[in-house]
Amino acid sequence: MAERAVVLASGGLDSTTCMAVAASRNREIIALSFSYGQRHSVEVDCARKVAAYFNAARHLVFDLSLFRTIGGSALTADIEVPKDRSYEQMGGDIPITYVPSRNLIFLSYAVAVAETAGAHEIYIGTNAVDYSGYPDCRDEFIRSFAQTANLATRIGVEGGGLRIETPLQNLSKGQIVALGQKLGAPYHLTITCYDPVDGVSCGHCDSCRLRLQGFAEAGVVDPIPYLNR
Amino acid sequence: MAERAVVLASGGLDSTTCMAVAASRNREIIALSFSYGQRHSVEVDCARKVAAYFNAARHLVFDLSLFRTIGGSALTADIEVPKDRSYEQMGGDIPITYVPSRNLIFLSYAVAVAETAGAHEIYIGTNAVDYSGYPDCRDEFIRSFAQTANLATRIGVEGGGLRIETPLQNLSKGQIVALGQKLGAPYHLTITCYDPVDGVSCGHCDSCRLRLQGFAEAGVVDPIPYLNR
Repeated sequence: MAERAVVLASGGLDSTTCMAVAASRNREIIALSFSYGQRHSVEVDCARKVAAYFNAARHLVFDLSLFRTIGGSALTADIEVPKDRSYEQMGGDIPITYVPSRNLIFLSYAVAVAETAGAHEIYIGTNAVDYSGYPDCRDEFIRSFAQTANLATRIGVEGGGLRIETPLQNLSKGQIVALGQKLGAPYHLTITCYDPVDGVSCGHCDSCRLRLQGFAEAGVVDPIPYLNR
Repeated sequence: MAERAVVLASGGLDSTTCMAVAASRNREIIALSFSYGQRHSVEVDCARKVAAYFNAARHLVFDLSLFRTIGGSALTADIEVPKDRSYEQMGGDIPITYVPSRNLIFLSYAVAVAETAGAHEIYIGTNAVDYSGYPDCRDEFIRSFAQTANLATRIGVEGGGLRIETPLQNLSKGQIVALGQKLGAPYHLTITCYDPVDGVSCGHCDSCRLRLQGFAEAGVVDPIPYLNR
């Protein structure tokens, strides 16, 4: 029987590549997405298609509209998303698109699902190379979280343990695209934009720019449409 | 200006004592409760009264009915709550009232609130002495979580840090009651039962039995009513 894995699925480039890695390892996939009133909620629809593409055993969508109550981020509150920033500007301080505790909360739910489903692996597409502004994307956070999760849970303490798999952690965006291309990741079903219009990517937010740079680096044509670039 | 603290408030004996400790340290209290379709949702009403009693600056109630979706526990699913178990029975394996990842998720939300509110302390009434069946009540989990939270967040990385305060961690139930009594904790507003009927405690579940034992040890009369004991 295939080993079971929870895969965090945002419908974007990274999580889709991450799911392609889990699929290439023959995992039975439980896809987990979060809907949190973010501007890019179209991503959840993309995640659904990607999960179906990989024959996920289940696709759970958890409503975290609480994030709006907590506030404090351009992705959930009424703060303008920055556009056309240079890579130097992106690489500096923690960006205002940072959602307080996002990956901490996402992973905590993933742990609850993993424990309930008897899955010993959680896949998350965090990546620290191109863009290290988010503290909760760093490897030291992920490693510390894994230790905490194993101390917090039945599956950790007496059930064989939990592993957090981050196959993209040390890859550049170009390497991520190349890996996904090799594994047959359905990039035509994904969206990455922080500020899409009618589901079409803007081409100018940090996320679009990094994605386009990644495809260019990998020498692959990005199959999704853009408003203008 | 008073230092701000997030205090997890379940409306029960331990969290109320914990809030009394925060109040005795002159913290500006942001009370945080979770409503998760548990059988004892009456606790949220108690938490509201306790927060008002301590003049909390805010009382946030987050709806985590997702816990029902995740399932896997007697407190959220249709599994019978155990009654009249001996203390030896309670002290053994992880009990079926364990909610997967509960404290991990609760604390992760508390971190998001703390970060947004600029609070550097989170109070949680975990306690490992009387009853160590829950992995996520152990000090080693709390310490690991604190480390993870500081790696995950802006407030941790560049904002002065977060501390998880667990003033009850090493106290017996009797010592907790004695401490709360000394600090003026409003125990008449609390409820602890896993299986109350119309807001009245059963007197026979693990939680009621530990509470009653604590009051007996401290030589204090428990001011709340019980169905029968």
